[in-house]
Amino acid sequence: MPLGEFALIDRFFRDLGVRRDDVDLGVGDDAAVLACPAGMRLVAAIDTLVEGRHFPPGSPAASIGHRALAVNLSDLAAMGASPAWALLALTLPEAEPAWLGEFAAGFGALARAHGVALVGGDTTAGPLSVTVQLLGFAAPKRALLRSGGRAGDVVFVTGTPGDAAFGLALEIGREAPAGPEATDAERQLRERFLYPTPRVAWGEALVGWASAAQDISDGLAGDLAKLAAASGCGAEIDLERLPLSAALLGRAGRDAAERLALTGGDDYELVFSVPAARLEAFTEHARRSVIDCSAIGRLTAGEGLQLRRAAHVMQFSHSGYEHFS
Amino acid sequence: MPLGEFALIDRFFRDLGVRRDDVDLGVGDDAAVLACPAGMRLVAAIDTLVEGRHFPPGSPAASIGHRALAVNLSDLAAMGASPAWALLALTLPEAEPAWLGEFAAGFGALARAHGVALVGGDTTAGPLSVTVQLLGFAAPKRALLRSGGRAGDVVFVTGTPGDAAFGLALEIGREAPAGPEATDAERQLRERFLYPTPRVAWGEALVGWASAAQDISDGLAGDLAKLAAASGCGAEIDLERLPLSAALLGRAGRDAAERLALTGGDDYELVFSVPAARLEAFTEHARRSVIDCSAIGRLTAGEGLQLRRAAHVMQFSHSGYEHFS
Repeated sequence: MPLGEFALIDRFFRDLGVRRDDVDLGVGDDAAVLACPAGMRLVAAIDTLVEGRHFPPGSPAASIGHRALAVNLSDLAAMGASPAWALLALTLPEAEPAWLGEFAAGFGALARAHGVALVGGDTTAGPLSVTVQLLGFAAPKRALLRSGGRAGDVVFVTGTPGDAAFGLALEIGREAPAGPEATDAERQLRERFLYPTPRVAWGEALVGWASAAQDISDGLAGDLAKLAAASGCGAEIDLERLPLSAALLGRAGRDAAERLALTGGDDYELVFSVPAARLEAFTEHARRSVIDCSAIGRLTAGEGLQLRRAAHVMQFSHSGYEHFS
Repeated sequence: MPLGEFALIDRFFRDLGVRRDDVDLGVGDDAAVLACPAGMRLVAAIDTLVEGRHFPPGSPAASIGHRALAVNLSDLAAMGASPAWALLALTLPEAEPAWLGEFAAGFGALARAHGVALVGGDTTAGPLSVTVQLLGFAAPKRALLRSGGRAGDVVFVTGTPGDAAFGLALEIGREAPAGPEATDAERQLRERFLYPTPRVAWGEALVGWASAAQDISDGLAGDLAKLAAASGCGAEIDLERLPLSAALLGRAGRDAAERLALTGGDDYELVFSVPAARLEAFTEHARRSVIDCSAIGRLTAGEGLQLRRAAHVMQFSHSGYEHFS
């Protein structure tokens, strides 16, 4: 990329996000110099979005900028950590000012909403992909891990999973709009894919309550199975208790909505477990902290993931949940 | 990428590099949890290598793994910082065990040599590219910046720049080998491209001595021009004083060797400035610290970069240095 283009890119990414007193040196040198708060642990996540895999070709640049930061904020939310500093590695075929401006606007708005400063970056020419590295803090021994769950713990999920998957299907035309004009429900579902809300404040409010937590990027069922495995447990989901949005139920119907909620991915909600003995106190805490979450099942002494509907039990597998028992 | 492939990748990247006591939680959860040393600043760099741009298609996987970490180690070296933790975002078309094993071996050997632990990562399917995020430490107000140089400071460069550029030319067949068997010089030049040595110990030894520093990734001339501009200065290079390797001179001849040293890139040497008043003491310090460096010019009160040969002065520009005065 010619030097002039680098200068252009630099213009968009200097001072993106908030200014923070703990940044000694931000974008523009060989590396950033940062002051960690005394007595806190550093929490570090890295995630890449590749065009054609994590977002459809031609996605709005603002959505790509938003999502590249959101997926990392979601990782920190799943740890109960507070985000602080981001580094951005952007690979793009050409430096187009309008595209860069929109990308920076999408990234910047979410960064400001979470008090994050962009402190470093690297821009290269190549097939479009975005890697963000996000740094934040947690108190020692207080980060939420995947491995802390125990059999009997109640499993919760935040928000209404499945929406983003239907939104993506609308976005790429795999699902047709109901009519010539997009409905409110359709707009809402597409927004959930294009501009997911990382659950940072909820994650922080779960510290001291959740025995294990993880964010949902690949689908509730698969991600809960990972949490359960890391905790040395199995897990059960009561299908009737899945929190499905009216928008998703209205467009997809109950069966498809359940399937999308379990396997859809891209929701960036949190799945977490709470010891059964603390269920009542947690419910009150969640109400006071305005954590939008639903109890959907439990960790079990077994292995793998089972799905229950009334008297029926199904074994979850990645090809679906066809194995009835 | 199917789950089985992720498990495969996980096998290669778990416990890569050294074990460090300051890692509370490494690869395998939503994020890493790390303990920063009290009283130190965190130094953070991010750099991406894209196939076809930063390395030729079909490059040895071990070289790609080595270089992806080396370019970030070089950034920390340029800050005088001590590396500690790396995160790896790897995008690759397919998970091929032999390739992954070699990549991990190249990355891991360099990580161990520098006491670095791999603490997190993300693997995605897509066109081959590697982003590494590297974290390390520096004492407060002690990091080497690009902006600290003053007119009159003596400019040094480490090692023998230009070698990597000729090595790349051999690697991609733009330069033909001299005979049917590669010579020692040719092997040496190719090694300098495939397995560059980040100057981490030298960067640490420059703290308290160098007024400004930066690593050479895009070519000595352009990178020195950036350092000078950040310091509000111009710069001059005495072409006769460029440290050119015997291997490069033997294969390329003096003129081409100078041109490659100035504009070639990929050397990952350090360029830095030292106040003239401390030149003698620094020379002794460099000798004791075994810093292989050469005085090649000075920062000036002017602007831009000038190249001198005997009585001639040339203005450097990115299309070459054709503007004689």
